[in-house]
Amino acid sequence: MPSIFTRIIAGEIPCHKVFEDEHVIAFLDIGPLSRGHVLVVPKEERTKLHELSDASAAALGGALRKVAYAVVEATGCADYNVLQNNGAAAHQAVMHVHFHVIPKHADGSGLGIRWDAGKAPADAAELAAAIRKSVPG
Amino acid sequence: MPSIFTRIIAGEIPCHKVFEDEHVIAFLDIGPLSRGHVLVVPKEERTKLHELSDASAAALGGALRKVAYAVVEATGCADYNVLQNNGAAAHQAVMHVHFHVIPKHADGSGLGIRWDAGKAPADAAELAAAIRKSVPG
Repeated sequence: MPSIFTRIIAGEIPCHKVFEDEHVIAFLDIGPLSRGHVLVVPKEERTKLHELSDASAAALGGALRKVAYAVVEATGCADYNVLQNNGAAAHQAVMHVHFHVIPKHADGSGLGIRWDAGKAPADAAELAAAIRKSVPG
Repeated sequence: MPSIFTRIIAGEIPCHKVFEDEHVIAFLDIGPLSRGHVLVVPKEERTKLHELSDASAAALGGALRKVAYAVVEATGCADYNVLQNNGAAAHQAVMHVHFHVIPKHADGSGLGIRWDAGKAPADAAELAAAIRKSVPG
């Protein structure tokens, strides 16, 4: 659905752009978690990652690698997180697919993660089979 | 560098596989944050995302979309986070590139995020220019 990113992609709202090609645009986050925090955004207007076309998804993968490389080069910070949130419950604020590239600096600035790992479920084989059957061609 | 994923890709260690193609394999995380937590892994043996080849990166983008679609279908949970950690400081545990697809269930299970947003730096235009100049061709 239309969002502020629609207007940034159209050039109606300015951004500090770091990358653009046919399918993808990337620019500085205006509320950065750390220095060099960049958003990598498909031009295709979809809310969640799994709703994208194949072409957008492949272009995003390539753009993510390039932008991450450039953020490492320009900031000198080689540790970083890549995060992409889908749905309000999962912390998505702008309802247009976007990946965050967030440097994790030596001063600790960057993404905070809470990792409450559990155990594999008893029906792991059945769960994997159900996911495998649902993979689109 | 070689890791447990090298042996999983080689088929020497079993996994609950949900997807595989020429460049990518995906399987259930053995210490899941939530039901349906899947790892999406390039077969190319690199530690960090920005070190991958273009072909691997593009294939990863496409595979991520497909796996996310399948996880949503199979779990019935449409909210999820995609996370990829680079470097020990950024929470990377296995030193081979991997994306997590982590459903955020209604019971709250899933990824925990701490979001300490700051303000755009005074030199945002210069920072963006430095990143833009470092994007590989």
